[in-house]
Amino acid sequence: MRVTNLECEAAAITREWSAAGSTIGLVPTMGALHEGHLSLVREAGARCGKVVVSIFVNPSQFGPGEDLGRYPRMLDEDCGLLAGEGADLVFAPTPETVYPRGFSTFVEVTGLTDRLCGASRPGHFRGVTTVCCALFNMIGPDVAVFGEKDFQQLAVVRRMVTDLRLKPEIVQCPIVREADGLAMSSRNTYLSAREREQAAFIYRGLKAVSEAAGEGETVLETLKAVFRNVLSGAPLLSLSYLEAVDPDTLEPAENLDRTVRLLTAVYAGSTRLIDNISLEPPHPSRRTGC
Amino acid sequence: MRVTNLECEAAAITREWSAAGSTIGLVPTMGALHEGHLSLVREAGARCGKVVVSIFVNPSQFGPGEDLGRYPRMLDEDCGLLAGEGADLVFAPTPETVYPRGFSTFVEVTGLTDRLCGASRPGHFRGVTTVCCALFNMIGPDVAVFGEKDFQQLAVVRRMVTDLRLKPEIVQCPIVREADGLAMSSRNTYLSAREREQAAFIYRGLKAVSEAAGEGETVLETLKAVFRNVLSGAPLLSLSYLEAVDPDTLEPAENLDRTVRLLTAVYAGSTRLIDNISLEPPHPSRRTGC
Repeated sequence: MRVTNLECEAAAITREWSAAGSTIGLVPTMGALHEGHLSLVREAGARCGKVVVSIFVNPSQFGPGEDLGRYPRMLDEDCGLLAGEGADLVFAPTPETVYPRGFSTFVEVTGLTDRLCGASRPGHFRGVTTVCCALFNMIGPDVAVFGEKDFQQLAVVRRMVTDLRLKPEIVQCPIVREADGLAMSSRNTYLSAREREQAAFIYRGLKAVSEAAGEGETVLETLKAVFRNVLSGAPLLSLSYLEAVDPDTLEPAENLDRTVRLLTAVYAGSTRLIDNISLEPPHPSRRTGC
Repeated sequence: MRVTNLECEAAAITREWSAAGSTIGLVPTMGALHEGHLSLVREAGARCGKVVVSIFVNPSQFGPGEDLGRYPRMLDEDCGLLAGEGADLVFAPTPETVYPRGFSTFVEVTGLTDRLCGASRPGHFRGVTTVCCALFNMIGPDVAVFGEKDFQQLAVVRRMVTDLRLKPEIVQCPIVREADGLAMSSRNTYLSAREREQAAFIYRGLKAVSEAAGEGETVLETLKAVFRNVLSGAPLLSLSYLEAVDPDTLEPAENLDRTVRLLTAVYAGSTRLIDNISLEPPHPSRRTGC
């Protein structure tokens, strides 16, 4: 496994691989890797001849007052994990490499970014799409793999790739969870022991909603109340948003008459956690009144 | 010469050319071609094995109330001229092809676009960079050729290519002029006979500035007064802006102590015309006091 912080080196290596006929899978990360990231690396490896993992805590996707400064950085440990997964190249550029003096171009997806995390984190997705566009052009991947935990990010990156005719196919992987159901996140390390314990209520709430839907409830306001009810058992958690949306357009849904995605952001103390679940419309034979 | 309005066809043709080892030069245009465009086509042909010319009157770079509707469209005539220059492919997509339903991604260069034409045409450069980014990704050119008449556009497109690590090298070509010095432009056809006659004062003014600089004048405010003085002889013209800037950063310059670009936009009736000239610092032996 090669490791570089030089853009020219990463570009030369991947160009050589492409010229030799290898497909390239890119897993863009901010490091502090956990099993969720590693599942993306394995997916990239299953689809492509070469796997590149970028590790870059991207300043432009953090707002003022957010956790850019204290975001965990542990490159050596990350590289150890990636070597174990058979990654071929780790590209860990500095902010000055990605954004050299004079950098002033931004890629922005409108509409999709107005709501949900975009509403509480203005500029966040502009930072994400800008860095992804630049990384895609540096590395030239055939496939880029993202996790479903950042569900809005997936929809936004897909939109950008479609609109700007970028090269990679965007592949999404399921959320990987801790034993108690909490979605894995590099930010889970911020949690106190009690916050960590209560954070499990987030997935417990989502699962309760999924079960109520499975029992035939289709009114999304009613289903959302199920979640809020579960969450009320965890006094250290406070809801930032809970929205049921179309999985592609992220437009709000009102009824479970087709597959919708239930997305939530929850504060545990000052730590913002996100999670989501797919809700399927009830099977016809189980629809109320059938 | 092949002509298509289909993105998939243009992409397939150019992919095949690249795979066969040809370099590709792209000349992005809005059609209504004149000798200025044809000089870009010849430059692309001198540098690359294959020349692609895109013809697309890009709605997103026109503001409300601008001339999108009446911008001249003459595809057959344009194709005749391009065949005569040995172009290999004309790609003339519809707006629905470039911006399909749901399109919502924009590429924006900040800073460079705030002033000059950007100040009087808000959103214009966002439209330019977005369509150029999409076209570059559709066609995959090694080289893209632009004219110096749209000097700010050149600086903005270069900035985007550098920042987003887009593939093409950006090549700039000198302004091509009519016999009386007016910079060629598809918009010159809007001019009445008297406006057309007076429009020649624009270049006459720029040349007078260049001559004054050649005689040792280095104070740009004084040089700009020379231009305004010439322009005052043409009552149908009114100045939109006149600025001396660094040719790369477009930052305002005050003294001719290095090469600067003098840029102007002038209204002839309701038609907006732009032009520019390079001003060189006086040769040391001619500097005042030496």
